[in-house]
Amino acid sequence: MSDLIADDSQQLIGGKIVRGESPLNLEMPFEKLEGFITPTESFYVRTHFPIPAIDRDAWWLHVEGEVESPFAINYEQFLKLKSVTIPVTLECAGNNRNFLQPKVKGVQWHLGAVGTAEWTGVPLSLLLDRAGVKANACEVILEGTDGGMLEDPKGPPGKLQFARSIPLEKARADVLLACKMNGSDLQPEHGFPVRAIVPGWYAMASIKWLQRIIVTDQPFAGYYQTIDYAYWKRRAQVGELTPLTEMQLKAQIAKPAEGETVPANSSVRVHGAAWTSNGEIAKVELSTDGGSTWNETNLLGEPQPNAWRLWEFNWQTPAAPGNQTLIARATDSLGRTQPVLRDADRGTYMINHLLPITVEVR
Amino acid sequence: MSDLIADDSQQLIGGKIVRGESPLNLEMPFEKLEGFITPTESFYVRTHFPIPAIDRDAWWLHVEGEVESPFAINYEQFLKLKSVTIPVTLECAGNNRNFLQPKVKGVQWHLGAVGTAEWTGVPLSLLLDRAGVKANACEVILEGTDGGMLEDPKGPPGKLQFARSIPLEKARADVLLACKMNGSDLQPEHGFPVRAIVPGWYAMASIKWLQRIIVTDQPFAGYYQTIDYAYWKRRAQVGELTPLTEMQLKAQIAKPAEGETVPANSSVRVHGAAWTSNGEIAKVELSTDGGSTWNETNLLGEPQPNAWRLWEFNWQTPAAPGNQTLIARATDSLGRTQPVLRDADRGTYMINHLLPITVEVR
Repeated sequence: MSDLIADDSQQLIGGKIVRGESPLNLEMPFEKLEGFITPTESFYVRTHFPIPAIDRDAWWLHVEGEVESPFAINYEQFLKLKSVTIPVTLECAGNNRNFLQPKVKGVQWHLGAVGTAEWTGVPLSLLLDRAGVKANACEVILEGTDGGMLEDPKGPPGKLQFARSIPLEKARADVLLACKMNGSDLQPEHGFPVRAIVPGWYAMASIKWLQRIIVTDQPFAGYYQTIDYAYWKRRAQVGELTPLTEMQLKAQIAKPAEGETVPANSSVRVHGAAWTSNGEIAKVELSTDGGSTWNETNLLGEPQPNAWRLWEFNWQTPAAPGNQTLIARATDSLGRTQPVLRDADRGTYMINHLLPITVEVR
Repeated sequence: MSDLIADDSQQLIGGKIVRGESPLNLEMPFEKLEGFITPTESFYVRTHFPIPAIDRDAWWLHVEGEVESPFAINYEQFLKLKSVTIPVTLECAGNNRNFLQPKVKGVQWHLGAVGTAEWTGVPLSLLLDRAGVKANACEVILEGTDGGMLEDPKGPPGKLQFARSIPLEKARADVLLACKMNGSDLQPEHGFPVRAIVPGWYAMASIKWLQRIIVTDQPFAGYYQTIDYAYWKRRAQVGELTPLTEMQLKAQIAKPAEGETVPANSSVRVHGAAWTSNGEIAKVELSTDGGSTWNETNLLGEPQPNAWRLWEFNWQTPAAPGNQTLIARATDSLGRTQPVLRDADRGTYMINHLLPITVEVR
């Protein structure tokens, strides 16, 4: 989709790194990680088309397809529905792509296409129950207002809307239709007036500028879960094109950052965040010697479902100056640990192998 | 996959037009169409990888997956199974691609990536029954011995085998595992020792150099039915990536050929072939004036399921010299007629809109 953008051309907009202007793609400098909640102004922005300018008085959300009573509601009606507020971590499926060797196409995200916000909205199950899902239904397609023409010769001709499906069971379980982010109305770049939040899944599923919810009786094979946002899953050694879904277990170091200088023979705070899907973070280990030895870090706060866990470690830096390689490694409550090496079947997505960074002790 | 090959570089091998040498792709010059059966030496050749050199004494065909009793048989055992002989028309899903404007990637087939042979082989149902298909099975994957590395960045990494799936119902109905073509053992380029014949489907499903039959309990999403050999099928206006299956209704003119000169004020035999899937050819019409008026042609022989029907028409050419545009149009027993215009959702495949050719009356 997007061409390679050199990592060193770090133009900033509002303190975020510009990874693309048209469509707009902005990354949080991950060394700015502080609290559990990412401030809205720091939250990364991922778009595929121009940001739709939606008039709240003209917006309708349609619920249709394999339902007994299709309906549409406007923004005023939507706001009257019972809402909940939950923290959810969203990560772009291509986060860390800039680390891949050799370079691959796609937005060259470093560490910051991830963030955690408090999302306020209406459970999707509430709208599904109101429409009355038919017995033959199996999936729910979420369709955004964003769309346009693709340049991809493998894509469908004509105008395409951004859309993605989720299994009905997941749709009923915990998907939220959010109208507030960190207590304020969604900003245009984050999906105003209403976006989906699909907890635990890569954020391509959390459709912004939501306009249609289509219940369907067969698996959806739209562009954004086949040609794009898919990977090769092996079954009996044979690769099958499979839509991306759940976020993969990962720990990232926020500080010190790649190339940073730290004082020798001192106590330096190393900190970052770690997240997984389904389970919770059990431990985060840190190596300061390129993976020879590992130290367990301190997990901060309390675990919350579908949100990252911050961690820190007090590093006693060596007395001798020189480069040191830092690596973080997460393990979750399901016993999973990050892979050491990249799995090529994942193409340009789901990057969660160990990512060493180098700092200079001086 | 393959790069554009100019149409005017008509290098010939064995009387066939070379559309690619590595992998080998050879087209029958369609003006050579004569009888109902295409001689083996004229039959088009489509390969994706080097032609496997298979020793008949070392070959095994495996039947596995969701079956009660997986087994393997060798060539000698295979030849002892009860066989049938049927004529089946095979057409490459990209046949006529050379007519598309603007030009698209892929082998630049003109009219001759189609042919009809007598295939002798064992019904797939016989092997499935012997293995005992489990109740949860839904598809049968056919895997060839041909394989290699892809250059497509969208493809799976590593070595890929050519493979395709068919629904269990179709697999049981009429799929043949052929060991003879027109009465002789298969030639290496046609899939020796055993290839599948999937009647009515584009030929990418008729896997050559068959090595494995895998019964599966979920739809297969391999490379050759997702990234390649797929099209955009619309459901409620939304395009979904869908594997190519059945051949589309089509009539082709063999003679006179594009650019040929015919005598003025004479009776000229126009002839060709027409085919469809499921139904049979009901009529073939010919226009000699660019589509203003249409004449019904004579259908030759008797209809045979899953095979083309030859047709002819005696054209009284005009007295005045000049160019004339000829168009053939087929209608089948299901009431379908060829579309006038190209459907862009089909990408580089399923080309069956009306294809005018120009001849010179002199």
